Amino acid sequence: MARTILSSATKEVVIGFDQPFAMIGERINPTGRKLFSKELKEGNYWRVKKEAVAQVEAGAQILDVNVGVPLADEPAIMAEVVPLIQSLTDAPLCIDSSIIEALESGLSVYKGRPLVNSTTAEEEVMERVLPLVAKYDCAVVAISNDDTGISEDPDVRFEVAKRIVERAHDHGIKAEDVVVDPLVMPIGAVGSAGTDCFKLIARLRNELGVNTTCGASNIAFGLPNRHAINNAFLPMLACAGMTSAIVNPLHEGLVPAVRAADVLNNNDENCANWIRYYRQPPAEGEEGGRRGRGGRRRRRAS
Amino acid sequence: MARTILSSATKEVVIGFDQPFAMIGERINPTGRKLFSKELKEGNYWRVKKEAVAQVEAGAQILDVNVGVPLADEPAIMAEVVPLIQSLTDAPLCIDSSIIEALESGLSVYKGRPLVNSTTAEEEVMERVLPLVAKYDCAVVAISNDDTGISEDPDVRFEVAKRIVERAHDHGIKAEDVVVDPLVMPIGAVGSAGTDCFKLIARLRNELGVNTTCGASNIAFGLPNRHAINNAFLPMLACAGMTSAIVNPLHEGLVPAVRAADVLNNNDENCANWIRYYRQPPAEGEEGGRRGRGGRRRRRAS
Repeated sequence: MARTILSSATKEVVIGFDQPFAMIGERINPTGRKLFSKELKEGNYWRVKKEAVAQVEAGAQILDVNVGVPLADEPAIMAEVVPLIQSLTDAPLCIDSSIIEALESGLSVYKGRPLVNSTTAEEEVMERVLPLVAKYDCAVVAISNDDTGISEDPDVRFEVAKRIVERAHDHGIKAEDVVVDPLVMPIGAVGSAGTDCFKLIARLRNELGVNTTCGASNIAFGLPNRHAINNAFLPMLACAGMTSAIVNPLHEGLVPAVRAADVLNNNDENCANWIRYYRQPPAEGEEGGRRGRGGRRRRRAS
Repeated sequence: MARTILSSATKEVVIGFDQPFAMIGERINPTGRKLFSKELKEGNYWRVKKEAVAQVEAGAQILDVNVGVPLADEPAIMAEVVPLIQSLTDAPLCIDSSIIEALESGLSVYKGRPLVNSTTAEEEVMERVLPLVAKYDCAVVAISNDDTGISEDPDVRFEVAKRIVERAHDHGIKAEDVVVDPLVMPIGAVGSAGTDCFKLIARLRNELGVNTTCGASNIAFGLPNRHAINNAFLPMLACAGMTSAIVNPLHEGLVPAVRAADVLNNNDENCANWIRYYRQPPAEGEEGGRRGRGGRRRRRAS
């Protein structure tokens, strides 16, 4: 059973089939956000701090850290924000960059065992990222596309993922430290994007024994009421066997949907987390632990 | 591929693997509702009418009709409310009673092809309900418990369901007209209630080829924030292969969760239903079809 063990200096988070679904907060990322990009370039990290704290408070167990701003010194920024975030929260981080120097820069200052986001099956990428993952003994997100691009055929995407797992093995990286991203297509463009993904997750889990993740919000790209799609997609992914996802934990309803999926997948023993988070506080004048007035009145209504 | 064809006088609804998930509205049911019970006994059906219209407006494709009030003449009430509901809505109905005479009374006045709720594998029940289902050529909910009660072992529940399907066959009822309820336990009491159910649904679908349904809200009995559990459970049930459920479509978020699951299961071609239901109306002064002001402003925020 795959156990991807991530850690900060003081906290361990395990991604695994028998673990609560791991929410990787996506908000520390300036892509498409002009102000955030400008601030990062200027060395102003107030928004990084805000997003870090807010996402952990909302329920993210892991934080993705992407500071990719065109024409900025990304390795230098990464070397500054990683310790900054680690000083604010004990959530393990996911060091996210397409620039190998930025990945190494983040890894070199990181305290604990992070996730690296990401390698693909492109030869050049694998041969740069995997040695780094091996050197720092950490875990890596493996995106199932290769030099020919992204296949629409889920069986091809499975084979591509398998190739990364095998190559990782050649570098001394265990399969349980490869978290495969099967790639989620926008369902408005590819009607089978959901069902392809569910089938692929099951194969990755049963045949390769690996953990899985994805950028979940891609699925609803271009559709109205997209949060409602995301909030249904996460429990379905969890039901299909996915064990983590890169999400926005601040979106209304997303965190409860994922925690409910933990309960329903029997990964929240005795519903203890659920009850801790969602038990109604006793109303004034009531005994502790009993349902509040409003609740009882609503129940009685016929 | 199982196709359970239900109808009213003017509308057909198909329950099936490649169909939108069928929501069976549960609100026409006086259980635990004193006023509703009192009104039914007095022949006052205003609440039946209200619940029928409200549930269909909310998105229910089928309405469960249960008028079980202790010491009332249930067959007589059923004979009155079925035509009344059919005069208000074209949604097919699910005639729901534990009293065989009430079932027959509802069936005898029904226009179209209803669902009968329900038989169990108890000998006496099967031998009373199944002949009725055969006589009226309709479909039936099969609850997987027998004379020994409800087994906690999902494999036993599978065998019990199989026995009902076989007995139905002896009465000339096709497997596609048997909609199996695998029985959902409260997850607060049985931690594996969700995962048992998901596995059982897959077996029922793959090995017996039948449609499935359940009283979904049972799962969250006794837990706080139970709607959030239900709203995650429905997409997970749909992902596991369930094709219908008895639900309260008036609960916030439930209908969008089910419709999102249709999109994600590729049972909403080109997302046409989704877009029809959830496209934002154009804001004042905007061109048709474009995103409203508030939406754009939110997107721009960094």
